[in-house]
Amino acid sequence: MKIVIIGAGNVGTRLGKAFQKKDIPVVQVYSRTLSAAEALGKELQTDYTNQLQQITREADLYIFSVTDTALPALLKSFPATNGLWVHTAGSLPMAVFKESAATRYGVFYPLQTFSKNRKVSFEHIPVFIEANHPNDQQLLEQLALSLSNQAIPLSSEKRKYLHLAAVFASNFTNHLYAVAAQILENQDIDWRVLLPLIEETAAKVQELSPKEAQTGPAVRNDIPVIERHLEMLDDSPGKQAIYRMLSRDIGRR
Amino acid sequence: MKIVIIGAGNVGTRLGKAFQKKDIPVVQVYSRTLSAAEALGKELQTDYTNQLQQITREADLYIFSVTDTALPALLKSFPATNGLWVHTAGSLPMAVFKESAATRYGVFYPLQTFSKNRKVSFEHIPVFIEANHPNDQQLLEQLALSLSNQAIPLSSEKRKYLHLAAVFASNFTNHLYAVAAQILENQDIDWRVLLPLIEETAAKVQELSPKEAQTGPAVRNDIPVIERHLEMLDDSPGKQAIYRMLSRDIGRR
Repeated sequence: MKIVIIGAGNVGTRLGKAFQKKDIPVVQVYSRTLSAAEALGKELQTDYTNQLQQITREADLYIFSVTDTALPALLKSFPATNGLWVHTAGSLPMAVFKESAATRYGVFYPLQTFSKNRKVSFEHIPVFIEANHPNDQQLLEQLALSLSNQAIPLSSEKRKYLHLAAVFASNFTNHLYAVAAQILENQDIDWRVLLPLIEETAAKVQELSPKEAQTGPAVRNDIPVIERHLEMLDDSPGKQAIYRMLSRDIGRR
Repeated sequence: MKIVIIGAGNVGTRLGKAFQKKDIPVVQVYSRTLSAAEALGKELQTDYTNQLQQITREADLYIFSVTDTALPALLKSFPATNGLWVHTAGSLPMAVFKESAATRYGVFYPLQTFSKNRKVSFEHIPVFIEANHPNDQQLLEQLALSLSNQAIPLSSEKRKYLHLAAVFASNFTNHLYAVAAQILENQDIDWRVLLPLIEETAAKVQELSPKEAQTGPAVRNDIPVIERHLEMLDDSPGKQAIYRMLSRDIGRR
């Protein structure tokens, strides 16, 4: 299977590396930014371009890993091919391809947080797939299973909830780490003392449910501690509001 | 060093087990609830009581691991001893002992999230210590280093910020896992598909700073996705408010 990767961001980069590792050929990389196309093309030792008319028509699979905002416009100007077109976006329906030249299309959504500079092992990443033809769904399932041990068919309607859940479990969680780090840095305490706690908090729910794992002042309804914490956040109304909302929601369980 | 543990909750239980593992004798366990005292006493194969007047006066160290709310009242009625008294609370100052019969006192605060039923390895848990006499500070430092490879002296004033940061990094983080799990359960999707993502999100900041590690619609300022997500949360105003606040704060960086 010959693959073209469109978009040289975090997801495109990590997918490209994962395919390469499994000897699945990435025959071309496209990015509208030449330097980004070049960087990823060179890393994967493959052809690259920032010109849509130079995209090869001979590939089997075109993976669109560009931002949700950029995708619809890109699809409208993307040249027709016989290959299967998929996007990697959790929040966009498969139907986004209806406004494109594609006849065979689908979704290939690996549920993970990707950064260009951090290696991830695909083996344990669930990949959620969808296609407008059963044969293509099978094809995507096989491709997913060549990277991961979990390939899960999921409709666009359900996938958008999956993406929403991932924002809470990962993006927002990471921001709470940032808030915590900021609080410590303001006190000249090395934020890295939090790392064992962060690790254990994530490890705990591999065993207990998040409800069982909940600890802290809010679940104990320890009002004096909560009030002292809110006072300590007096100088940053944003953090104070986050503290109040989350404590209230924990109390609601 | 002979230790008495006062309070048979999560922290008391995990500390008791950790001392036992290092052959540091826990000579007695106290809890105002007899069944809890008994459970931990039996688990540690040691004496237990729910009567303050039966507390041994012969121990070297009395570790108070009761809730922040319960501690001040308990200290007032706790019988005088020659031993060193410490509490394990992140949010209470050392000065809480001034209202007690203690002459030697301090704090022994392991920065971790403890649950009764989950083993933790103390080795990588930073223990923050404080005492009203330098000799006792040294003693606590040695004790901490017998369990952990990090013993860090820290004032009460700074420790309260550490505790606040820990609430963000652990308690609130865990609640976000719970929110995410709930969103998936409402869609009949097994929430455990999130586990590799949760694990990687925590693992990432062991290498990158939380700011570098941030991904997702809010940091990309992807307004259409954010608005769709807010709409999807229309039926749960609490979660919607959390989503809005956190996205706004991520945008503020």
